[in-house]
Amino acid sequence: MTRRVVLATRNAHKVGELRAVLEPLLDGVEVLGVDAFDDVPEVAETGVTFAENALLKARAVANATGVMAVADDSGIAVDVLGGAPGIFSARWAGRHGDDAANLDLLLAQLADVGDNHRGGAFVCAAALAVPGGGEFVELGELRGTLRRERAGDGGFGYDPIFEPSGAHRTLAEHTAEEKNAISHRGAAFRALAPRLAAELA
Amino acid sequence: MTRRVVLATRNAHKVGELRAVLEPLLDGVEVLGVDAFDDVPEVAETGVTFAENALLKARAVANATGVMAVADDSGIAVDVLGGAPGIFSARWAGRHGDDAANLDLLLAQLADVGDNHRGGAFVCAAALAVPGGGEFVELGELRGTLRRERAGDGGFGYDPIFEPSGAHRTLAEHTAEEKNAISHRGAAFRALAPRLAAELA
Repeated sequence: MTRRVVLATRNAHKVGELRAVLEPLLDGVEVLGVDAFDDVPEVAETGVTFAENALLKARAVANATGVMAVADDSGIAVDVLGGAPGIFSARWAGRHGDDAANLDLLLAQLADVGDNHRGGAFVCAAALAVPGGGEFVELGELRGTLRRERAGDGGFGYDPIFEPSGAHRTLAEHTAEEKNAISHRGAAFRALAPRLAAELA
Repeated sequence: MTRRVVLATRNAHKVGELRAVLEPLLDGVEVLGVDAFDDVPEVAETGVTFAENALLKARAVANATGVMAVADDSGIAVDVLGGAPGIFSARWAGRHGDDAANLDLLLAQLADVGDNHRGGAFVCAAALAVPGGGEFVELGELRGTLRRERAGDGGFGYDPIFEPSGAHRTLAEHTAEEKNAISHRGAAFRALAPRLAAELA
C-alpha cells in the first residue's frame, strides 16, 4: 500500500499551510490534494463544533477516495461574540469563502468595542479518517486580539486583523514559516502527526 | 415635580412597545420620547452586555434631560453562535438598524445548521436612571427557535424568523398584545415597573 494522505480541502491557502506543516513530519509520504481525485462529493458542514466538521470532511473524503484523509476546520472565535464567528468564519458575511467581506463585516460588528474587549483566538480542529479504520481529532488554538484595521499581506482570512498575543504585528505580517510555528493550524496538525505516522507505518 | 419618564430610544418600534407595556403600569405618568428634547447626545454603546448598554443609554438621557430615563438594550442570542448576535443584533450586517440585512445575514450564517441546533432567545435589559439618583436594570428573556424563512408582518427586527417555544408561529405572527405579554421586552419592563413606580411616587 502506497504511503499516501489526501488533504480534504479545496482551499488552496489551507493546502499550502497543511503541506508545509505535514511534509517535514511525514518523511516520504505523498500528500495529495482532494483535486487529485474525481467525484469527491462536497460535504455539508452540518456539525456545530470545529471537531465535528473536521471529522465530517475527513470521513467523507476517506470514504470517497479509499485513501487516508486529513481535514481541517478552523476559524476565529471572538470573546465578546461568545466565540462567534467560530465554525461560521468562512461564511460570516453569508457567502462561503469571501474573505474580504467576512473581515469587513467582523470589523463593522466590533466597531464600538473597546480595546480591552477585543480578545479572541484562532481555533483549528485537525481530523484524520482511515478508510475502514479509526477517526482522530486534535485541537489547536492561537490567542490574540482583534485590530481595528488591516495590516499585512500574508496569510488569508482574518489574518490581517489578528495580532497574536505578544506579537505586536498581525498574523498577516508574519512569514509563512513564522505563522506555521505558532498557528492554531500548525499546533493542531503537529498534535495529529504522531497518530498519522502510526497509521501510515 | 411632574411625573414624567423619558424613553431613551429613537427606535419608533421600541417606543411603541415600551409605551404599550409601561403606560398601563404607570397610571398618570407622562411617557415621553427622547425626541421631545433638544440636544440629547447620541450614546456610543460601548458596553459588552445588554445591561451595560441599557444603563449607558438611560444614564446619558437622564443626565441630558434632567428627567428620569428608561432604556432598553435587546437582541437575539443564538445558541450555536455562542449567544451572538447578542448586543450586536441591530448592527449585525454592519450598518446600524438595517433589519432586513441583519435578518438575511443571520439566515445565511445558519443555512447549514440542522433543526435540532436552531435554539435561541430574545434577551432584553431594561434600565432606569434617576437624575442625581439611582440606577436599576432588569433582564427578560424569551426562548424559541430560529426558522429558515420569514413568516408574518408584525413586530420588527428578527421577529419574522423567531418562533417562541410552544408557539408554532413566529413572533411576527403575534399581535402586538400577544407579543408584549410574552416578550423579553415586556418581561424586563414589567420587572422594572415597580422600581419605576417607587421612584415616581
